[in-house]
Amino acid sequence: MKKHNFSAGPCILPEEVLQKASEAVINFNNDNLSLIEISHRSKPFVDVIENARSLALELLGLQNKGYKALFLHGGASSQFLMTAYNLLNKKAAYLNTGTWSSKAIKEAKLFGELDEVASSIDKNFNYIPKNYKIPSDADYFHCTSNNTIYGTQMKSFPETTVPMICDMSSDIFSRQLDFSQFDLIYAGAQKNMGPAGTTLVIVKEDILGKVERVIPSMLNYQTHIEKDSMFNTPAVFPIYVSMLTLEWLKDLGGIDFIESVNKQKSALLYNEMDRNPLFKGLAEEDDRSHMNATFTLTNKDLKEKFDFMWQEANINGLHGHRSVGGYRASMYNALPLYSVQALVDVMQELERKA
Amino acid sequence: MKKHNFSAGPCILPEEVLQKASEAVINFNNDNLSLIEISHRSKPFVDVIENARSLALELLGLQNKGYKALFLHGGASSQFLMTAYNLLNKKAAYLNTGTWSSKAIKEAKLFGELDEVASSIDKNFNYIPKNYKIPSDADYFHCTSNNTIYGTQMKSFPETTVPMICDMSSDIFSRQLDFSQFDLIYAGAQKNMGPAGTTLVIVKEDILGKVERVIPSMLNYQTHIEKDSMFNTPAVFPIYVSMLTLEWLKDLGGIDFIESVNKQKSALLYNEMDRNPLFKGLAEEDDRSHMNATFTLTNKDLKEKFDFMWQEANINGLHGHRSVGGYRASMYNALPLYSVQALVDVMQELERKA
Repeated sequence: MKKHNFSAGPCILPEEVLQKASEAVINFNNDNLSLIEISHRSKPFVDVIENARSLALELLGLQNKGYKALFLHGGASSQFLMTAYNLLNKKAAYLNTGTWSSKAIKEAKLFGELDEVASSIDKNFNYIPKNYKIPSDADYFHCTSNNTIYGTQMKSFPETTVPMICDMSSDIFSRQLDFSQFDLIYAGAQKNMGPAGTTLVIVKEDILGKVERVIPSMLNYQTHIEKDSMFNTPAVFPIYVSMLTLEWLKDLGGIDFIESVNKQKSALLYNEMDRNPLFKGLAEEDDRSHMNATFTLTNKDLKEKFDFMWQEANINGLHGHRSVGGYRASMYNALPLYSVQALVDVMQELERKA
Repeated sequence: MKKHNFSAGPCILPEEVLQKASEAVINFNNDNLSLIEISHRSKPFVDVIENARSLALELLGLQNKGYKALFLHGGASSQFLMTAYNLLNKKAAYLNTGTWSSKAIKEAKLFGELDEVASSIDKNFNYIPKNYKIPSDADYFHCTSNNTIYGTQMKSFPETTVPMICDMSSDIFSRQLDFSQFDLIYAGAQKNMGPAGTTLVIVKEDILGKVERVIPSMLNYQTHIEKDSMFNTPAVFPIYVSMLTLEWLKDLGGIDFIESVNKQKSALLYNEMDRNPLFKGLAEEDDRSHMNATFTLTNKDLKEKFDFMWQEANINGLHGHRSVGGYRASMYNALPLYSVQALVDVMQELERKA
């Protein structure tokens, strides 16, 4: 029996996507060849990557608005570096909401002056700072929309005149936003989009070409725009599975539909967490993430019992990150409501038995 | 019926590897979870990447000799840049044997002085230059062991006192060499190792840490060595399939065994090419690649007929690269001898019918 998969990422993907991906590894497109042994320049694969790029823009409502969608190598960690390499002339503004923001800040420091406009490190990143000022002479403002480790999520984004860059690795395609407020969005595939190994970059072309440094080809967004994400051999399988997942999402009803499901799932879990005296949430209530819920037991002596019970209930991936401890339930797009119900059932059973 | 797949890359992989990979996308390790939806920090996947790294060193005979094996993002194209970023202080020596060497040279020029010790561009790269001098004050010497586009392959490597770096993307694991003569070897997975999306880097640790520039984390070999190739989420599926392919190769008898098969395959094709008056080889005889054979028709009027015949014979991927024209038969490790025989049969049939 399939497990209830609360893994923080790589994470659960839709069953029908896994089925199609598995078949394509044997016979893709009825051509009697595997997806992973055909040329990336062949029409069947060019159709895949074009479809994936177009679906990404369509789902975000960013077609015909000056944006390009790219599928690049290197994970979001490479984007920490590439954003600065391509866009940081003198000074950039960063909001520090956790481990990933901090890593982005570290890499960008090699390329210019960094203004950390606010940080929630004082409370181990359990909230999202508000009311900070973004200097108007910054080359850009960078933020992380959702913080998997701490279970926090930005519910609104600042008004600013400088270009806004957002690392949406862990909540892209999960909720509706005015995505046109961002000038560059990046996201590692391995949460709501696909398997590890490819990274989606959505970039507004008019912010590029403004730094003087020479940028190596593989790190230059313009290289990849000119070559339609095919400057070098792309990560064929991860991109194909991402395309399947984006198709699945579009067929379901797009971001509006999945957002309503995601809100039901997170409400179910947060309500139980607040009601059940054996549990307490770790993130500040206003900033709680709909993707990753962090919580802990109020009585540590129950740990062994609870751990045994959820594993018996066929639940996977509930341990919290080492820098926070406790538990983390990641409820990405493909996680069914009944999986969250299974977890809530265990929490209630613990209450009855404790 | 499965096609005879002569694709230049991504290319044919062993049938049993494709079967296992397809199964793992549904249920990996009998855990009732897909390989692509589990944590990369979970024991089952850590075992995969450790096994892949260890098999790579074992097959090349490089265990316990000061080398580390890494599976990195970004393709060989990122290595053009990373080798120079990590190793080029003042001056580096490059041998130019084709498109990929030229690209490596272009990226390295951003980091120091480049000494192009020899080039075969005068004859559209249809041979490997010999008798060139490598300056003893170079930080390293860089070469490309096999040139897929032109069908040439280095049969020997120069004696030099400077560290030797080799791009072996298209012939690693296909022939026996004294691999300890190299200080850094890199190879995109998508020829003899696995699907596109991961790159093997074998690096001798003692050549690192000698440049003064600050290297961004993702571009720094030492970052990846310290984190055992897990600095960021690795390309899970491509690495798993690479591990399966390396296991397949080890079980067959390793590089010695596959080299004898590869020699049989290339001898079969080159003998026909030399015997059959309708065909001629494009690379100089001494430098012919055992992986990629480039050839053309002696009478261009037969093109339509030949193209029809090989496609009828269930052969895939025989068109030459646009910069060379004609035909290219790529005979990577997983291509069976009977596929080469199928091609030779078509060549002989053309002779009978022409």
